[in-house]
Amino acid sequence: MGKIVDVKFIVKEYTYEKPFHIANSIAAGSTNVEVQVFVENGAIGYGEAAPSYRVNGERVETFPTLEAFVKEQLVGVDVRNYRRIFDIMDGLRSASSVKAAVQFAVLDAFSVETGVPVYQLFGGAKDEIETDKTVGIDTVENMATEARKIFESGFKTIKIKVGEDLKKDIQVMEAIAEVTRGANYIVDANTGYTPKEAIYFAKALYSRGIDISVFEQPVKAEDIEGLKFVRYNSPFPVAADESARTRYDVLRLIKHDAVDFVNIKLMKSGISDALAIVEMANTAKIQLMIGCMSESSVGINQSVQFALGTGAFVFHDLDSHLMLLEDSFRGKFVQKGPRMLA
Amino acid sequence: MGKIVDVKFIVKEYTYEKPFHIANSIAAGSTNVEVQVFVENGAIGYGEAAPSYRVNGERVETFPTLEAFVKEQLVGVDVRNYRRIFDIMDGLRSASSVKAAVQFAVLDAFSVETGVPVYQLFGGAKDEIETDKTVGIDTVENMATEARKIFESGFKTIKIKVGEDLKKDIQVMEAIAEVTRGANYIVDANTGYTPKEAIYFAKALYSRGIDISVFEQPVKAEDIEGLKFVRYNSPFPVAADESARTRYDVLRLIKHDAVDFVNIKLMKSGISDALAIVEMANTAKIQLMIGCMSESSVGINQSVQFALGTGAFVFHDLDSHLMLLEDSFRGKFVQKGPRMLA
Repeated sequence: MGKIVDVKFIVKEYTYEKPFHIANSIAAGSTNVEVQVFVENGAIGYGEAAPSYRVNGERVETFPTLEAFVKEQLVGVDVRNYRRIFDIMDGLRSASSVKAAVQFAVLDAFSVETGVPVYQLFGGAKDEIETDKTVGIDTVENMATEARKIFESGFKTIKIKVGEDLKKDIQVMEAIAEVTRGANYIVDANTGYTPKEAIYFAKALYSRGIDISVFEQPVKAEDIEGLKFVRYNSPFPVAADESARTRYDVLRLIKHDAVDFVNIKLMKSGISDALAIVEMANTAKIQLMIGCMSESSVGINQSVQFALGTGAFVFHDLDSHLMLLEDSFRGKFVQKGPRMLA
Repeated sequence: MGKIVDVKFIVKEYTYEKPFHIANSIAAGSTNVEVQVFVENGAIGYGEAAPSYRVNGERVETFPTLEAFVKEQLVGVDVRNYRRIFDIMDGLRSASSVKAAVQFAVLDAFSVETGVPVYQLFGGAKDEIETDKTVGIDTVENMATEARKIFESGFKTIKIKVGEDLKKDIQVMEAIAEVTRGANYIVDANTGYTPKEAIYFAKALYSRGIDISVFEQPVKAEDIEGLKFVRYNSPFPVAADESARTRYDVLRLIKHDAVDFVNIKLMKSGISDALAIVEMANTAKIQLMIGCMSESSVGINQSVQFALGTGAFVFHDLDSHLMLLEDSFRGKFVQKGPRMLA
C-alpha cells in the first residue's frame, strides 16, 4: 500500500549563470518550491514548482501557504490511485505549477514504490531525447557568439528569443544563421509582435533563405485570431505557448485551426492537462514541443520523464537546469550534452 | 525486465443463454479470440477480442492468421514500454478488437510483473462501478417481463434495445416503465431510426412522462448531421456509439457539437484510442458511458479495469459476460449483482 502520510513544500532559491532576457522580461534567478510526498512505506516522491507570473499569473509567495491545503487533500490517499489526486489538484487553478509538482511527486512516489521509473508509468515510448539550448535577448554580436558556442558544444537545435525589436531581430537571425550552418532554429517571440510584425519577420527570414523549424508564440496570448492569421500567412510552423495553458485552451486552438504546434509545459498544465493535450494534439495532427519555465534538475526531471514516456514531442526545450546554478544534479535521467537518457 | 517472448491467439466459442436480438441483427453466440502475451520472466498477460462485423467491419476468421504478424511485431519489446506496442497496434485498423486485446494483454503482463493491478496503472480513480443489464428485442410482453426481472435482481439501470419498429418500441417503453418504477433507462436504437423517427420516439416518451438517461445511436453511423439534429430536437441526452469508433470520429463529433454522450467500447477503439477519447470528451464536457460487444469475463475485465482506473464513465454497460455461458469466471474483479469491485 502507498498511502500518503505527509506533504512538504520547501522554498528554493536559484540563480541564473547570467540574467535571462526574453521579450519584456529579465530574470536574475528563480524562487521555486520543491514538493515532497511521503508514503507510509517510506517512499518519497519529489516534484518542483517553477512559477511564472507572466504566463500563469501565479505568485510564488503564496505557495508555502498552500502546503496545509494540499496536505489535507492528499493525506490518506494511495499514490497508486493517482487519478484521484490529479482530479483534486485540477481545482488549484491559482497555482498551476504547484498542481504540476504535486501531481508529479505522487507519480514519483508510485514509481519508487513499484521500482518502475516514471517514464515507464507513462508508457516508455523512448529511451532518449535531445534538448535544444536557448539564446536570450542581447546584442546582435553577443547572441551570435552564444549561438555559435551552443552549436559547437553539440546542440543541434537552438532556441532564439526575439520579440522586442523587429529590425534587430532580423539582424540577429542573419548573424546566427551565418555562424551555425545546419542548425535547427526555434524562434520564440514570447507574445512580442503584432500579427503583421510577425508575418513581416517570417517573410524577411524566408526571403533571406533562413529556415526556422518553429515560430513560437508570435502574438499576444489571447489573440487566437492573430495566431491563426500568422499561421496562414507565414512559411514556418506557428506554435502556441502562452496561448496554450490548459486542455481547454488547446481544444479551442484545434477548433479554430489556429496553430501547427503546441508547446506543452508542465508548469502551465500540470500532468493531467498535459496528458490530455498530448492526446488531443495527436488526434488533431498538431505537432508538439515541450518546454520549461525555470526548473532546476528536479523540475526538469518531470518533463524528461513525461517526454520519454509519452514520446509525443518533435522538439524538447528543456534547458533551464543548464542555465541555473545548482549544488548537484538531481534528475533521474542521464544528461550527456544535449542528450537526455532514461 | 519484461521482454515479450511469445504471443498466442486462441479461438473460443461462446453461446448466449438465449439468442441476443438488437436492431437488424440476431446472435446465438460469439466466436472470440483470446490473446496471451508471454514475458521472459514467466508473466502472462490476457486479452480478448470480441469482434463485430456490423460495427467494425472485421471478420473473426481472419484473426488467427494475424497471430504471426502480431508476434513478429511484439517479441523483444518490453511490456513496460507499452506505448511502443500501442503505437504498433494502432496500425491494425482492419481488426480493432485484436488491437484492443493485444494492447490490454500487454498491460496485464506489466501488471503481473509489477504487482500493480491494471486499474491502478490507469490511475485507480474508483474502487467500484455498477453495470446495467440489457433487454434484447422481443415481444412487448417478454421485454417487460425481462426488464422487471433485471430490476428486481438489483440492477438500477436497464438498457433497452429498440430501433426495428417505432410504434412497438413506444409500447415497449410504456410497458417497461410501468413495471420498473425508479429505474434508469438507456435506450439503444443501434442506428435503426431516421432522424425524424428518433425525434418522434423521444417526444412520444417525453409526453408520456417516461424519462430516459441516454438515447443511444438513434441514426445511421455516418449521419453526423442526423445525430446533431436529434440532439437538438430531443429532450434526452443523445449518445454516439456506432458513430464513435476512433479518436478521429470523436474529434469530429466534438467539432460538430453532435452529441451529449459517447459510448466507448474497447473493441472499437483499443486502449490507445479509448484513452484519447476519455481526455477529449472530458475536455469538451461530453459525458461518457462504456459498453461491450460479446466479451466473456476475460474481455469484460479489460473494460472494468479501464473504467475503474480512469473513472471516466457515468454509465457502465458491461453485461455480455452475464449473458454468455462460460465454464468459469476469469475476470480480475469481483462481481456482486450489478456491482463490479476492484
